[in-house]
Formats: sequence, structure tokens, C-alpha cells
Amino acid sequence: MPAYQAPVEEVLFLLNDVFHIDRHANLPGFADATPDVVRALLEENARLCAEVLQPLNQSGDKQGCTRAADGAVTAPAGFGDAYRLFAEGGWIGLAADPEYGGQGLPYTLAAIVNEFVTAANMSFGMYPGLTQGAIAAILKHGSGELKSLYLPKMIAGTWSGTMNLTEPHCGTDLGLLRTKAAKNGDGSYAISGTKIFISAGEHDLTENIVHLVLARIEGAPEGTKGISLFVVPKFIPDEKGEPGKRNAVTCGSIEHKMGIHGNATCVMNYDGATGWLIGEADKGMRAMFTMMNEARLGVGIQGLALSDVAYQNALAYARERLQGRSLSGVKAPGKPADPIIVHPDIRRMLMNMKAFNEAARALVVWTALRGDVAERSQDEKERQRGEDHMGLLTPVIKGVLTDTGFRNTVEAQQVYGGHGYIAEWGMEQFVRDARIAMIYEGANGIQALDLVGRKLPANGGRALMGFFKEVDAFLAENKDSGDEAMNPVLAALKAGRGDLEKATGWLMNNAMKKPDNAGAAAMDYMQMFGLVALCFMWAKMVRAAGEKLAAGEGDGALYRAKQVTARYFAERMMPETAAHLARISAGADAMMALEPDAF
Amino acid sequence: MPAYQAPVEEVLFLLNDVFHIDRHANLPGFADATPDVVRALLEENARLCAEVLQPLNQSGDKQGCTRAADGAVTAPAGFGDAYRLFAEGGWIGLAADPEYGGQGLPYTLAAIVNEFVTAANMSFGMYPGLTQGAIAAILKHGSGELKSLYLPKMIAGTWSGTMNLTEPHCGTDLGLLRTKAAKNGDGSYAISGTKIFISAGEHDLTENIVHLVLARIEGAPEGTKGISLFVVPKFIPDEKGEPGKRNAVTCGSIEHKMGIHGNATCVMNYDGATGWLIGEADKGMRAMFTMMNEARLGVGIQGLALSDVAYQNALAYARERLQGRSLSGVKAPGKPADPIIVHPDIRRMLMNMKAFNEAARALVVWTALRGDVAERSQDEKERQRGEDHMGLLTPVIKGVLTDTGFRNTVEAQQVYGGHGYIAEWGMEQFVRDARIAMIYEGANGIQALDLVGRKLPANGGRALMGFFKEVDAFLAENKDSGDEAMNPVLAALKAGRGDLEKATGWLMNNAMKKPDNAGAAAMDYMQMFGLVALCFMWAKMVRAAGEKLAAGEGDGALYRAKQVTARYFAERMMPETAAHLARISAGADAMMALEPDAF
Repeated sequence: MPAYQAPVEEVLFLLNDVFHIDRHANLPGFADATPDVVRALLEENARLCAEVLQPLNQSGDKQGCTRAADGAVTAPAGFGDAYRLFAEGGWIGLAADPEYGGQGLPYTLAAIVNEFVTAANMSFGMYPGLTQGAIAAILKHGSGELKSLYLPKMIAGTWSGTMNLTEPHCGTDLGLLRTKAAKNGDGSYAISGTKIFISAGEHDLTENIVHLVLARIEGAPEGTKGISLFVVPKFIPDEKGEPGKRNAVTCGSIEHKMGIHGNATCVMNYDGATGWLIGEADKGMRAMFTMMNEARLGVGIQGLALSDVAYQNALAYARERLQGRSLSGVKAPGKPADPIIVHPDIRRMLMNMKAFNEAARALVVWTALRGDVAERSQDEKERQRGEDHMGLLTPVIKGVLTDTGFRNTVEAQQVYGGHGYIAEWGMEQFVRDARIAMIYEGANGIQALDLVGRKLPANGGRALMGFFKEVDAFLAENKDSGDEAMNPVLAALKAGRGDLEKATGWLMNNAMKKPDNAGAAAMDYMQMFGLVALCFMWAKMVRAAGEKLAAGEGDGALYRAKQVTARYFAERMMPETAAHLARISAGADAMMALEPDAF
Repeated sequence: MPAYQAPVEEVLFLLNDVFHIDRHANLPGFADATPDVVRALLEENARLCAEVLQPLNQSGDKQGCTRAADGAVTAPAGFGDAYRLFAEGGWIGLAADPEYGGQGLPYTLAAIVNEFVTAANMSFGMYPGLTQGAIAAILKHGSGELKSLYLPKMIAGTWSGTMNLTEPHCGTDLGLLRTKAAKNGDGSYAISGTKIFISAGEHDLTENIVHLVLARIEGAPEGTKGISLFVVPKFIPDEKGEPGKRNAVTCGSIEHKMGIHGNATCVMNYDGATGWLIGEADKGMRAMFTMMNEARLGVGIQGLALSDVAYQNALAYARERLQGRSLSGVKAPGKPADPIIVHPDIRRMLMNMKAFNEAARALVVWTALRGDVAERSQDEKERQRGEDHMGLLTPVIKGVLTDTGFRNTVEAQQVYGGHGYIAEWGMEQFVRDARIAMIYEGANGIQALDLVGRKLPANGGRALMGFFKEVDAFLAENKDSGDEAMNPVLAALKAGRGDLEKATGWLMNNAMKKPDNAGAAAMDYMQMFGLVALCFMWAKMVRAAGEKLAAGEGDGALYRAKQVTARYFAERMMPETAAHLARISAGADAMMALEPDAF
């Protein structure tokens, strides 16, 4: 049976020593997030994860969700009680507007809690996760009336939320969507159509479910310019705001899928269901896009979360499983064999995961803090800088953290040998669960295109220039740091940053005249960007570790491990940027040369 | 529902035009394998795969195997009839000794058929596959009596075979095994112990099951030097050689696992079961090792097979699914969107798979032919060359084809977007099934160690020098070929070969004094070797394609596609060798620096 211990000390190192959360005290909500409050909060969440959520992970996978003939869906045993505990703890509204019952704490803390909860039980975490997404959309685009009606219930956790975008014939290409909205004459609309892949579309955890639905108002333009966003509750609120009449939305079936069995993936049928417009008519895509950064960051966090829980268990197994002897001499002479952690190839897999997880978590925290700045700062320049950062890094985090996170679950499973393939050990579930994060909320190929085609050229490349400037300032500042542990990571960062610049130059010279060159380069560019960003995080962490060691503060072993792991990342991960550059520079010719029927 | 069409034309191109099977006509069995016979045989097998085996793949996964309270195991519906058809077709004994009822055809053809069958239905293919492994072991090491008793029944398919190595506390480290063999006094032994992960350990497809079991004879030395190999039949043959008394071997349980649900993975309990020694006492490991090349090659082929069937389905989906418009202008103006094959990132995934599959198949055919030479040639030098090749390339094929094959099933699933995650579409099954091939028959980390620690240094590096010599001769021979399509692949081959030589030199200089440097380098070295070997295959294929085009023979489109795909491989896969070299050269320091409790 797998276990999970949320990495609270790691997070505190990041918040306090690497990113200095105390310097953000001028932002709303941050003054309340004192070091003691943050530690207590994270430890409380860690307990909930270890004691309540993680023990339901394997049973939830095995049992799955069941749908009755009338369309009612039952979540796995224990999920209902866990959800109530979770809601009562105030976790759903941790960062939400206090006006509607939220705690108003930094979004950064909500992102961290999201990692913990997902690592403990991804299927469970999706229920509050989707609710948080729906809360954000209503908060940003809904009328005052909609906000007062829905947000308090959703933040309290008595109502949950969903996102309804995909239809059988359209996923990525939402311009093709066919769900219709007809005016009822009373300000509401009648929504009709079929949505698929609706996570948490129907379940028995909450007394009401609030569906956010993309649909086309009759007579609206074709394509993405005629799409509107609606709120469609399962039960229409009565005059007291309590669940009233059953709306004409039902779960037609649930999918049998590779993983996340504890979360029902529903086909939702809308048969003239009553809905209310969120934001302006025909501007539904814009409403979707403004909340997409946060949602995609959330999915990137899922990649990290699964990677970390898989790593924790692989590490425990590698310390205990006895098999073979160390190449450098017997390590456990009193035992029939050495623990497999003595073998370099087992180490390689563990260090791959560790070196990724710690940097990925730093990247999430760094970016989430910038998200808080973008949302909460009074300074327009700071807000813009935060938005640039979020826009640029979000596709990178979504794409790279889910790709690498999945790969790490596979490596963690490999550490177990044959036992990794057996359901009982729990490792294969991590692989199956992690796989979806590469697909949903925009498949990773779409993230790469978003980065290269939209985020890079936006505002004359301002966001990317800001990123380079920050890396360069760091390199200049630490050139003569005297901290030897920084040398390998600074050298690797400099080389990787150089490759990234060359790749960017290649795109500027070759993608305008031939757009397929951008498409052909996009995935390698995103992966390369991810490596440079993660290496930058290692550089920041090693600097902080060196400062703590020099000051003789805190856990020396932790900081020395940072130095070793940073060197590992520099030596073993960063050589990949040159390979990405070579592939990018090859262009689209060979990729696009074959006619479809010549494959 | 997925489909599968065995790549018969591809194989004929390899056999006839690239590797010139006709030049092997002097070997036993090859004279019968005329081009017409081979084509007819492959087409017949392709039909069986498409019409009988593939249609049982999804239902077999869904239904799985069931175990009754008495330990009897039922295979999925349809598997029994399919197995009888398969056996009657003579497929089990295709390459087996005619003295015992085999067809005596080249092993190369059996390897190709193995790919087809596995692609159609991996779980099914394991039943005859394990039987073939057991046949090979008995043939090589069994007494004349054992051979006459068991081989005709196994070759005819009325009896099947298994391999019993693993125990709960020992997989890789077989020296720890505890299963005991006590002399019965009549030449037989009483075998007692528990074996786990026994594929096809119990089922209802055949009238008898012949278990090959590793056990320690009472009083034998500890470690691997005291292990013997036994044949333990489920039913003890009576005086007529028919299944007689039930032996004391039972299936204690079957595992719930990630994939290959159609093949029962059994815990086998031996309670004084009667067994007979195969080969010499205490030499069981040697008997295992001599058959390991073939078994590991078989698992490598599974990686290729799953990659190919996943690719075929992803290609079909990419041609049909309409979503978005091409960056270079609308391609299907009469349709609401273009087929997704127009998008570079979809192309990238398809070309990755295509470029791998075709070269991997060439590598298998090349190596299998050398295996035939090693087994059947009258010329000792030729036999030695064949053995060197098999020994060197087998871990590469097992490790690289299963790693890349798995990665390709994940990419094929990605082409489907959200549908790839849904069981109904069949793509997630390929991922789950392919995953085991990286683990069993020696986890891939073990393959890498086998390559670096055993195969490279053997006979003073003779096998590797032979490989380099062959690549160099090819490069010299084709330096001025005048075939422009060869240039990118020759350049990439030369560069990759150079990196491989540097890596080898680094190992020679750094692994003797510090063995962990070998362990730390092994996986990268194996992957790099695989790339160079695959690139060599592309060079050979492009040369053959150029010759056919120059002669105006055959299917020009096929040959031109080879040229494009070779260039893609050279440009997109080969940059990776430099990254592997950089990682290898980094050594073991950072990897091994942390104490186990400092992770």
C-alpha cells in the first residue's frame, strides 16, 4: 500500500528562503500568511492528506464511480465524508474572496495545497479543483446577482462546479461546437446539446452541481466568435437560494477509462436546461481564456503531485528491497543482499525524480506568487509583469510538468520491478492517473503551440525578454559568488539560456515565412524552455541553500542535498537543451514531406 | 475499435532487398524459405492475426482470466479456439527441429511472426511464446528421453510451457532463491517452493502444462552456483506419454495487474511436485542463460509490436479526425476542419513512431538472421560472429525497443486526445500492455548492465569491435554513393558512431577503477547504442531503397518514403547521442553522493 507525506519542509524552504514570501506583505491576504500561520496550515493539510485522502486512493480506483439507470452517479465509498471534512476545513475557499466566505489567503497557498491533495488522491482532488475553477469564472465574469447566489454555496462546499467545453466532434477546435442556447424571454436561456468528458459531471458529494457550459446563442456567428458561457445548475435555486426544481441536465453515461476512476467522467445531456449567461454574449471564449492560466497551472501541478507521491514510494521501496550487491563493495553485510538504493541505475531513477520534483515545485511557487502579484498588486507595472510571467510560464508548466511527471511515475514503477506492474502495490495507478494530465485542459501539443504561437510574440516578445532579463541579472549577480556549489548549475543555466536564445532566433527567422516551422519546433521549444526554467529554479535554490549553510541556520543536510541534486540536474538534464536545439533547427521539411497516404 | 494489418511488404523489403535472405540459402531450412513461400506464409499469418487474434484483444483485456477455488484458471473467451487454430497452423513449431515435428524454417521467420502475433494480441501471443522458450530449453539441455517425451506435444501445441524463476524475495538476484529439490531415488526430484509472476502458469488452453522450474537441490551450494533447472509437468506423462497423474503443482492465485489481462500471471505452489533435471545439476543458470538471448529478443519484439499496432491506429485516426486548420492554409475546404494529420505536432508523433518502428524491425531481422547463422552455420567463424552479434545486440534490442516502444504507445494515445484515455478506443490498452515488456525478462536497467558489464568486455571487446568494423565498412563503401538521400543518414551515423566510441573510451578509462561509473553510465550507453544501431539500419534501408529506385523496380512511393523517414530519424533522433555522451561523461559522483537517508 502506498503512503504519502506532504513535503511541508520543502515548501517552507521555498516560501521563506528562496522566494521570500515576506516581501509580498503589501499584497492583500499576504499579511495574514505569517510563517507560523503558513506552517500550521500546511501541516494541517498534510495530516488531512495522509490520514483521510490518501487511504481512499486505491479503494477509489478499484471501486470507481457507478451510474444508476436514472443517471444518478455514486462516488467511491468514503469520498462523501472526506469531501465534507475538506469543505469544513475551509480548503475550497482558501484563496477565495472573503466577501463570499473565502479566506482570502494567497493563491500561492491554494496551489501548494492543490499539490498535496492531488498527490494524496487525484480523483478526489478534482472535485474541489473543478469547483475552484468554476468559482474563479463566476467571480471574474458573473453578475453581482450570480455571484451572491452561487459563490457562498460553492466556497462552503455544499455546491460543486464543473466545466463543460468538449463535444463528441470537437475538443481542441471549440469553434465547431453545436450546443445551442435559446432565449427564454425572462433573461434565462434554454440550453440543448451533448457535452463529453465532463469530470465530476454528476456525483453524490454535494447537494447541487453548478455546470459552466459553453454554447452558441441562436443566430450567433459561427466559429469561436459566437460562443457564450452559461451557468446551468443541476437544481435551479429557489427564492431562498436553496436547491429547487430539477433542471433538464442529466448524465447520459460515464466513461470507462485508463485512470482517475474515482472521478466520474460524464456524458452530459442538456435538453432545454435553464441557464444564465456569464459575462457578455458571444464572449464566452474570452471568459474561458481568462481563467485558463489558473486551470492549466492546476493541471501542471497534478503532474508534479503524481511524480512526487510515486517518488516517495519508490524511494521507500529502494531503501528496503534487498537484491544484489553494490558494485563498490557490500553495503549491508548482515543481510542476504544490499538494499537496491545502492545500485547506480536505481539511483539514477530516484535522482531524476528528485531533481525534477524539487525544481518543478519551485517553478510552481514562483509562478503562483507572480499570479498573486498579477491579481492583487496595486502597482500596474508589477501586475503586468506578473501577467506576462503567468502567460509565458503557464503552458510550460502544464506541458512540461505533466510530461515529465508522467515519465517519472513510469520510472518510479520501474524501481519496483515486477511488483510495479501489480495493482496491489499502487504504483501502476499513479501511471494511469498521471496520464490524463498530458491530455486534458489542452493537450500538451496545444500548450506548445500556445507558447510558441501566442505567448512568445505577444506584446513584441515582452514576456520572454522579461524572463531572459531575470535570468541574466541572476547570472551577473552570482558570477563571483564564491559558492562552489553554484558553479555547475550556473554554467548549465548559462548554456541552456544560450540554446534557448538561439532557438528563439531560429523561430524568428524561419517561422514567419513558413508557419509549419513553428509547429514543428513547438514541442521541443516548450521542453527546452522547461529545462531552462527548472535550472533557474535550481540556481535560486542552491543560492538560498548556500546562504543558509553560511549562516549556520536550519537543516544542513537538507541544504547539502540541494547542492548535490542541483549538480545532478545540471549534469544529467541540461545536456538535453542542445538536442532540442538541433531538432528545432532541422525545421519542418522531413516532418511534413510525406503525403498522408504515403505513411 | 482498433485494427491491425501486419506489415508484410515492409518485411519482404527487409528480407529480400536489405538483408538478402537468399544469400543464406546454404543454412539448413533457408533453402525452403523461397520468396514465394515466405510471402505466402507471412500473408497467411497476417490473415490469422487480423481475423482471429486481433478481434479477441479488447475482449480478452476486459474479461481477463479467472481462477476457480480449486486453482483452475480460465482464459478469456475465444482464446481456446484461437490457440487450436494457431497450433494447427504449425506456427508454434515454425522454426523448431523437424525431428520433433517442427517445420525447421529460419528462426528469423519465427521472430517476424512473433511481432505480428504480439501486435494483434499480446496476451494471446505469450502462450505460444513461452512454449517456444520452453521448447528451446528442453531442446538444448534436455536428455534424449525428455526431448522425445515433451517436444512433439509442445510443438504440436497440445501441451504448453512456462518459465518459473522469480520468487517473492528474489527477481533479479536469483542467487537468493529458496525453492528446493529433493531426490526421490528414482531419478526424479520432489520440488517444493513458491514461484511468482508466472505468465501462463495455469490456463485451459492445452491438455498439459510443462513448467520449467529453477530450484536448489538439497545440499547444493548457496548463490547462483547451486541452482538447477527442472521440468515439472502439470500432469505426469503416463507410459504412453499421455497426461497421467496430477502433479503437486497448483496456481495459488492470479495477480491483478496493469495490463496483459488475457494472460494469467500466477503464483505457483510446488508441494513436493515431481520434476526431472534438465541438463546438469547446479548448472541451471547456464541453461537459463543460453536460452535468454532468444527470450529477450522476443520481449524486445513485443516493444516493437505494440509500437506498430498503436502507430497504425493513431495514423488512421489522424487521417480521419477533423479538428483545426493547417498552419500553411486550409487543406480540406469542403470539410468543417482539416484532418489532424496536417498539424506538425501530430506529424511529429507519427513520424517518431514510423521512424522507430521501421528501423527497429530491421534491427530485429538483422539480428535474428545472425541468430540463425549462430545456430545453423557450418562455419565456425561465422557462428562466432553470429553469437557475438546476438550477445551484443540482444540487451540493446530488449532495452531500447521496449522503452521506445512503450513511449510510442503513449504518443499514439496522445494523437487521440481525450479519446485516447477512454478504454473503448483501445489505445490505453496498448500502453498498459506495453509497459510490462520494460520490466520482465530482466528489467531494462539489468539489460543495460548486461551490455556494459558483460557483453562489452567479453573476449576483449571482440563483439563491439565487430560492430564498429561493420559500420565503418558501410560508411567507407558508401562515401561516394552519389545517392543524395543517403547524405543526412550517413552524416548522422558517422557522428553517432563517434559519440559511441567516445563513450566506450570513457568507460574503459573510468569504470575499472570505479565500477559505479559503469553502473551510472549503463542506461545512457544502451540507449545511445540503440540509436546508432537503428541509424545503421536506416542507412542500409536507404541504400536498398536507392538501388530499387535506380533500377525502377517495385513500389517507388515506398522507397521515397524510406528516404524521407531516414532523414527524419537522422535529424530528430540522432542529436540525442550527444546528450547521452554528456551524461555518461558526468560519471557517478552526483548520482551516488547522497546517503540513502538524505534523499
